[in-house]
Parts: sequence; C-alpha cells; structure tokens
Amino acid sequence: MSDYNPPLRDMQFILSELAGVDEIASLPGCDEATPDLVDAILDQAGKFATGVLAPINRIGDQQGCRLEGERVISPDGWKDAYTQFQSAGWIGLSLPPEFGGQGLPKLVSTPVWEMWFSTNMAFAMLPQLNVGEAAAIMLAGSDALKAAFLPKLVSGEWGGTMNLTEPQAGSDLAATRTRAETQADGTYRVFGQKIFISYGEHELTSNIIHLVLARLTDAPSGVKGISMFLVPKYLVNPDGSPGARNDVRCISIEHKMGIHGSPTCTMSYGDNVGAVGYLVGERNRGLEYMFVMMNEARFGVGLQGVGLGERAYQQALGYARERVQGRDAVTGENGQPIVHHPDVKRMLLSMRARIMAARALLYTAAGWFDRAHHHPDAAVADKCRRYVDLLMPVAKGWCTEVGNEVCDTAIQINGGMGFVEETGVAQYFRDARIITIYEGTTGIQANDLIGRKILREGGATLIELAADMRETALRLAADEMLSSLGAALLEDIATLERTLEWILSNGRAHLDWVLSGAVPFLHLLGTVCGGWQMGRAALAAQAGLEAGKGDADYLQGIVDLSRFYFGHIAPHSAAWARTVMCGGESVSGHDCMAL
Amino acid sequence: MSDYNPPLRDMQFILSELAGVDEIASLPGCDEATPDLVDAILDQAGKFATGVLAPINRIGDQQGCRLEGERVISPDGWKDAYTQFQSAGWIGLSLPPEFGGQGLPKLVSTPVWEMWFSTNMAFAMLPQLNVGEAAAIMLAGSDALKAAFLPKLVSGEWGGTMNLTEPQAGSDLAATRTRAETQADGTYRVFGQKIFISYGEHELTSNIIHLVLARLTDAPSGVKGISMFLVPKYLVNPDGSPGARNDVRCISIEHKMGIHGSPTCTMSYGDNVGAVGYLVGERNRGLEYMFVMMNEARFGVGLQGVGLGERAYQQALGYARERVQGRDAVTGENGQPIVHHPDVKRMLLSMRARIMAARALLYTAAGWFDRAHHHPDAAVADKCRRYVDLLMPVAKGWCTEVGNEVCDTAIQINGGMGFVEETGVAQYFRDARIITIYEGTTGIQANDLIGRKILREGGATLIELAADMRETALRLAADEMLSSLGAALLEDIATLERTLEWILSNGRAHLDWVLSGAVPFLHLLGTVCGGWQMGRAALAAQAGLEAGKGDADYLQGIVDLSRFYFGHIAPHSAAWARTVMCGGESVSGHDCMAL
Repeated sequence: MSDYNPPLRDMQFILSELAGVDEIASLPGCDEATPDLVDAILDQAGKFATGVLAPINRIGDQQGCRLEGERVISPDGWKDAYTQFQSAGWIGLSLPPEFGGQGLPKLVSTPVWEMWFSTNMAFAMLPQLNVGEAAAIMLAGSDALKAAFLPKLVSGEWGGTMNLTEPQAGSDLAATRTRAETQADGTYRVFGQKIFISYGEHELTSNIIHLVLARLTDAPSGVKGISMFLVPKYLVNPDGSPGARNDVRCISIEHKMGIHGSPTCTMSYGDNVGAVGYLVGERNRGLEYMFVMMNEARFGVGLQGVGLGERAYQQALGYARERVQGRDAVTGENGQPIVHHPDVKRMLLSMRARIMAARALLYTAAGWFDRAHHHPDAAVADKCRRYVDLLMPVAKGWCTEVGNEVCDTAIQINGGMGFVEETGVAQYFRDARIITIYEGTTGIQANDLIGRKILREGGATLIELAADMRETALRLAADEMLSSLGAALLEDIATLERTLEWILSNGRAHLDWVLSGAVPFLHLLGTVCGGWQMGRAALAAQAGLEAGKGDADYLQGIVDLSRFYFGHIAPHSAAWARTVMCGGESVSGHDCMAL
Repeated sequence: MSDYNPPLRDMQFILSELAGVDEIASLPGCDEATPDLVDAILDQAGKFATGVLAPINRIGDQQGCRLEGERVISPDGWKDAYTQFQSAGWIGLSLPPEFGGQGLPKLVSTPVWEMWFSTNMAFAMLPQLNVGEAAAIMLAGSDALKAAFLPKLVSGEWGGTMNLTEPQAGSDLAATRTRAETQADGTYRVFGQKIFISYGEHELTSNIIHLVLARLTDAPSGVKGISMFLVPKYLVNPDGSPGARNDVRCISIEHKMGIHGSPTCTMSYGDNVGAVGYLVGERNRGLEYMFVMMNEARFGVGLQGVGLGERAYQQALGYARERVQGRDAVTGENGQPIVHHPDVKRMLLSMRARIMAARALLYTAAGWFDRAHHHPDAAVADKCRRYVDLLMPVAKGWCTEVGNEVCDTAIQINGGMGFVEETGVAQYFRDARIITIYEGTTGIQANDLIGRKILREGGATLIELAADMRETALRLAADEMLSSLGAALLEDIATLERTLEWILSNGRAHLDWVLSGAVPFLHLLGTVCGGWQMGRAALAAQAGLEAGKGDADYLQGIVDLSRFYFGHIAPHSAAWARTVMCGGESVSGHDCMAL
C-alpha cells in the first residue's frame, strides 16, 4: 500500500484562485477563516488522515463488520480511531458554534472531508451522517429536540443515520410503508423495516440517532404523506445520558463489494411495542426535510469521488514511477519506469485532469454555498443559491462517475498487480462502485437536473451559468498563450446551449426523448463545467506565471493539465450533445419488455 | 442469481447473416459444419453451460481456490464439472481430428466458447489454455512431442498453462530470466520463477503441461534469446501415463478481486535438480511460437468480454423487468417495472448494442480466420489473414473494454442490489476487471495496433478495410429506411481515414504523440468497426423484413438497435479522433516524474 500525501498544494490553489477563500473569509459570520487558520486546519487534517485513518482503511476492508446477535462489531482499531476523531472536534468543523461546532465555512471543511474520504471512506461515512442529520434537525427540529440531540451529534458522541429505503421503496419514496402511531404523550411509535441503512448499528458511539421517514396513520398517500421521526437507539434520560433500549434493532447486514468497514444494515422498527420516535418539524413534510440532509449527503458523495480518485491516482503514480518495464518507444532506451510510456502518461494525466476539474467544481460550489448563506448582497446570495441548486446533481452525478473512472484507470496502470488485492488499489475501485448509486443514482441525479432544475424554470439558471462560463472562455481566447483553450471552451458552451434549447423545445412534446438523454446531458454539463474550471485554473496559473508569483513549474503544470483536459476529455462534449439531440427516439421506440 | 439463457437467436443471426457460416461450411475441410450439426452443437452447449457450468460459478467465487502445501484445491463441484466437460469432448471442438478433435471451424466453436465464458469464465479459462497450447505445439512441436502430448491436451485429460510473466518481466518479455540448461539426453533443465500463471497448479486433470519461456545459457539477450519449453508436472512414462513428479511447484496463489475459481499461481521451476523440459521448435524462437498461443488467447479474452457482458445484460434485464419502482415520467402511471424508465431503457439498450456489435465483430473475425486457413482462393485467404492480424488488438482490446462497460452498467441498473453480492452481478463486474489486463493490456494492444499493424505497412490493410466498410455504408445510404445510418457510418469512416492519415504522417517525426493516442485510436477503430457490423446487421434485418422472412419483431429490433448504436455509441468516434490528432502534444509535454 502506498502512503497518502495530502494534496495541499492543489487544494490551496483551488481554494484561493478558484473558489475565493479570501472573499469568503471576509463575509459576515465567516471571519474566523483566516489564512493562518485555514492552513493550520488543512495541515492538521492531513496529518490525522495520514496517521490515523489511512492505516485502518485496509483492515476495514479485510475484516469488515460482523453481526453478533443484535450487535455490530467494527473492524480492529476503528473504535480507537473514532474516539480520536471525535475528541479532535472534526465533526463540528462547519457546524454552528451554538451547538458546539466551529462554524467555519463549508469551503474550508470541504478539503478536510476530501482527505477523510481519500484515506478511509467507509469510516468517514459515519461522521458524514452526523453533519447531514444536524443540518436537518437545525432546519426543522423543535428547540427541545435541538437542545437534546444537536450537541451530541455535533460533538460526535452520538452517531446519526438516515432511514429512507424500504424493500419496495428504493428510489421511489412515495412507496414508503413504515408507519408511525400517535401517542398520548406527544411522542410516536414507529413500525416498519428499513434497508440499506449505513451505520444503522455499531458500537463506535454510545447512542445512535435515527432519522426515519414514516407515515402517520391518517397521512395522505404518496410523497405528501411522509413525516420525519427522530428515533434514538437508546432513549435519553432527563440528564441527557442514554437510557432504556428503544424498540429498534439491526436484523442483518449486507455482504457488499466494497466499503466493508461501513455496516449496511436492515433495521427493524417496532417488533414489540413500537419504537419511540419524535416528530421532526411538521407532519407530512418529512421528505422536504430529508432533502436537506440528502443534499448535504449528495455533495459529500461527489466529494467521495474526488477523494477516492485522488488516493487511487497517488497510488498509480507511485507505482508507475517505480515499476521498470519495457523500453522507451522513441529512444529505445531500456530500464525505464513505466511513467515514461506515452499511454501510461496519458492515463495518469487523465486521472489528474479529471480529479482537478471535479475538485475545482466542488470547491467552487462550496464557495457558492457559503455566499448563498452569508453574502450581504441579496442578489449575489440568490444567484449562488441557484447555482448550487442547479449543479447539485452534477456535483453528485458527474463527480462520482469521474471517481469511478479514475479508480478504474488506476487498476489499469497497475496491470496484473491492480487485480490482486495487495496493492490496495482494488479496494478503492470496489469502494468507489457504490458512489454512483447511493444518495440517488446517476440516473436519478440526471432526472432531477432535467426536470426540477431545468425544465421547471425554462432553463433560466443554466442560461445564466453559460453566460458566466462564456466570460471565462472569452478571457482565455483573448490571452495569447491560452487562446486555443478559449476557442475549445467557446465551442463547448455553444454546444451546451444548443442542447439546452433542444431540451426546452422538446420537454413537453417529447419528454420521453428528453429523459432518455438525461444522463448523457449530465455528462455534457459536467464535462463543460469541468472545462470551465480548468479554463479558470489556466487563467489563474498563467497570470501567476506572468507576474512571477508562486512556483513556476507547478503553475505551468496547471496550464498543461488544462490543455490535456481540452485535448482528451472535453472532446466528448459534442458526442454527449449529439446523443441527447439525436438518440432519444431510438430509446423511446423500444419496448424493453420484449427484448 | 438469474438464470442464463443461451442467446441462440442472436448467435444464429450473426453466424448466418454476418459471419457467413454457410459459406464457411462449403470450404474444403469445413464441410462437417452442416446447419443441423451447428444447431445441435449450440443447443447442447447451451444446455451444458446452463446445467453444469452456471450452477458452480458462484461457488467458485465464494470458495475460491486454496493452497495446501503444494496442492491447489478447487471449489466444490468443479472437479465433477470438469470431468463432464472433458468427457463430452468440448475441448477438441475446433482442434484437428488427427489428435482427437472434431475439426470444426473456429466460427462454430466461437459461440460455444462464448457460452462457457458467460456461465463460468473462471472455469473456462482452463480448457481455453488447452486450445492455445495445442495450437502452439501443432505449429512448432516435434512429431514426438505432438504424439506424446497433443492427444491428452485435446481430450482435456491433461491441462495446459502458458508461463511468460516473471516479477521483472510483465509486459516486457525481453526481461525474461528463467533459464534452461542443455542435458546430454537432449532434454533441458529449467530454473526460474514465473508469476500470474493461471491454472499453474490444480487437481482437475491428472497432469499439467506447462509451456515455459526461458533462456538457454548461450542465448542472445532480449526477445531474440527466448526459447519455449514444454515442462510436464509429472514426467510421462513410456506407456504415456504420468510418472515421476517433475521439479516444478506452485509456491503461492494470488488473492484477487475476481475469477476466484481460477488459481493464479507463482510457479517455481528447478528448486532442486531443475525441471525437466523439452524444447518446442527451434532455439530462440520461443516468443514467436508463444504469440500463436497468445493470439488464440487474445481472441478468447475478447470473447470473454462478450460472454460476461451477455450474462450481466441478462441479469440486468431480468431485474429491470421485475423491479417495480416509481411512476412513468410521461403518463404518471404508478407501479411500473423500471424497464420502462427512459434511463433504464437507455442503459439496457447500450448494453445490448455494445454486446451485439462486439459479438458481430468477433464472429466475423472468426469467419475470416477460417477463410484464411481454408479458402481455396489465395487472395481471399490472404486478405482474411491480414484482416485478422490487423483487428486482433481490437478484438481483444475493444471487446474487453466493452465487456467492462457492460458489466458496470449492469451494476448501475441493479442500484443498491448491484453493490451487494447476492444478485451475482457484482461477480461479473469483478471477474471482468481482469480482461483488459491479461494477455496484454489495452495499452499493449493499442501499441501493437499502431506499431506492428499500421505503421509497419503504411496503413495498407486498414485502408482496404475502410473501403470495405464504405461499401456497407453506401448500401445503407441507398436504402430508404436506413439512409441515416449510412450517412452516420460514412462520416465515421471518413473520420477514421483522416485520423489514419494523421497517424501515418506523424508516425516518424512525432511517434510520442501518436502513441499517446494509441488507446483513443483503438477505441475509435473499435467503435467504427462496431458501427460497420451494426450497419451490416441492419441491412440483413431490413432485407429479411422486406422479404417477409424470419421473425419480423426480432428483425425490427435489430434495425432499431442499430439506430441506437448510431445515436449513442458511434458519436464518440469523432471525440476519439480529435484526441488522437490534437491530444498528443499535451501528453508528450508532461514530465510525469515531476507530478
């Protein structure tokens, strides 16, 4: 297994040059994010990730979790690592100080989470749930619920879960059957089975706080009859300590292809008297609240793509530098490390270019998120909120696809050694396979993008975004050194706009054609947004070079990487566009029941 | 786990309409391949694959192989299945009658092997080695070696292996260190270590015949000093029975991501007195002979891509037909199986279209192989031989990439159920990950394509092939119903030719740029050849429809699938071409040691 090196230089470049960390730090409520503090946090996180999380990642894969009666036993060393993680206060990094968090901007916590995902994704899923659950409770919970649960979730003393899926209700939550009965004391009793519940049971925390979607007995059918309940594993005593065991248990855990350290549980609520639950927010608005948690989780899963990709890239680069094989195709020189073979270089650069594009997009989106919440100019805040909403399916859908491609390429660079388990790269590949699925598959993201984010508003925000992207492209085109990148980006933006027009004009009459092209369109938009970010990166790097500021080799490498992106990745934009506009009918015409 | 249904209708369509099985059966030496016999063989193979191989595939994955001392123990039921496989005479299907084979054309054995790979790839790798080894011995072995070993390899009483890789010699066989010492009796003693040897040790056969690359003590360095030796696990008694144990043993087996039922062995030759070996053919020509075995294996590995893809497709289609989730995006109707969702349809069609294109290409190539060996017109035979040579890297490289993509899509269609191991689709995905690696990675195939197959002859054969493809495209363009397919194919062929010209004119001055685009070019050529085959399929199906012959629904489905291919897969041709022509410099300019 290769060591993990926190990619601090890349992270800092994107934070300062593309995501605007200085501007964010100047916003009201974000002023703690001074450059010194940000540096210190990234440095500490890098050390923690490398020293504590990375060493137990493989143990987690090899040992997995096991169910003993109703207990779920985590792999060796995980409990200790969690205790350290919790004590260091990492969970509350971007959560509000009033509940014990540090209140830092999302932009600052984003590279930190990337490092957790790089070094131990299966582990990081647990604290990730706390952050999402805290967001949902802050939004919708009563003051009493907040006071009782938020401090423990923010500190990480207790764990969180999100319970949506049931055997008949996967992507389609309208089919939810778990029910909740009103009790005289204002609490509820929850009955039903939930599946695929990450960290539904474990002993890393002294209590587990489940957020559960269920129907009240008099609720309307469909998604408008779903409420959210908070169901603790242990009921909470008046003094705040865990009390009696609640009527909820894990009845099985899944045998999965990856993330073995993260228990995926089938949870049974109310086998006896009913699991005591507390209504979160108003009745029948559960799905709306869960989407807050879900959106937080979707961004995080996109970041998992970058994190796993970075880890796999580092491993592959290390292998390619050391592995001597074959001779130089041009000079005939022998004894060359494979990193010099053109195809291996191509693969390494395709990994790095995709990771950088996806990372830049996610960090930039994190900056929008902070501006949406803190920017004093309402117009700026509103625009940033709309950009976040529009691109959330891309942040999740495209970045997870990128993560899978990058991990796949890492295996290929390792050759036969990639297929055996000892190098560790096989684990990244297996772990990555879940990220295009959970928190809404790529198909679900793409439908969300087309339906809720584009058709519903006639494409207004995307048109605005395309105009912003064109500004970058024109700046590139005007730069002597970067004009070819500008020309390529302008072409891709025009292709995107043409495709959007086609979608808008066919959304009504041929919705089936449009939806057949939803995933290709998500790839198109992701690829163009990635190009936009790589173009911005090239502009910033070129400016640094011309000003003689910063590490010239590094900056030139960024410009070159941007060129690679436009030579190897961006060209597929036109293909995705053609598929959206010309491929729909060939899908609709088919009756796949007859295949 | 879903059942496997032999795709006999698709196979028969391709055999008769695209690969010309009737013409092949009319060639001298192929006349046993009557339609009735072919039907009977496919029918029997389908039953055997479904009844015997499919049921033990999962057992193989779950139990894997284990090393006990020097013994390798196969999973439960595998020995019995192998005995049945051997008794039925399947191994000799396309091998010469003089050594006990049935002497059928490769075209007839190809769909049979596809079924073995679909139902149990890890198992089928063993008999596949026999076929390749037999080809090498037939080519180069002395009459005595042939008489002693071929009948047992053809019957499958003994197993075969190919021993190329050493720790320092993976893709680069010039670095081979295993050595062979001449003995007074004309035999040799072999010393060295070989790694990644599939079925290097097992007890499914009573003897194992290793073909080993090694250097004679006086051999020149590099690839011109490698000889091939036949090293039996048990020396052979004068009566042909296995005798004393030879000095070769398995010292470890790999822990792999997939194909757990196939033991991947580290073999140690000559720990004591040296392993007795027999020189195959002439000294220092071992690599040349091994390439015969290798080419056979490469075709077979391409077919593994189709086989695994077909199995994964059937599983995903079955799941999509049964899984009820969500409502119809257009009609709003509830309780729909997901097969009706546009994105799921898109995914299923992309699987089927890729599989059919790759299958058609491989079967067509098998037909060329038979014509190359049996066609009485030397010009036809020669052209077919050249087409096989040119396209072998595509048959291996592109079809294995297709197999991986298809298995990946199958996971996606299954959603969360695809990530858990119980559906079986995760195994296909894990198993498939080796096929773009072994027998030469996709990068190696692409370098072979550019270097040996194109630059060396100035692109002559590819120019000829493009002209043949254009003929198909013009026929499509002239057909009222299919003209849009013709236009798309013509465009792609022109793109291919333009890219070829660029390669030919830059091959000398900018070989590094050209090689940076080798894999993108392999994708381009594969995608265009796939489109050519789908175009041929559409023409045949349309002709059948117009003549009122055959199952009209099936034939219309083929035409529609071809349309899908040109709407969803072929559009990427232009992107690959652009990368080849514009992306090279951005790779060459990089020093990846400095990343």
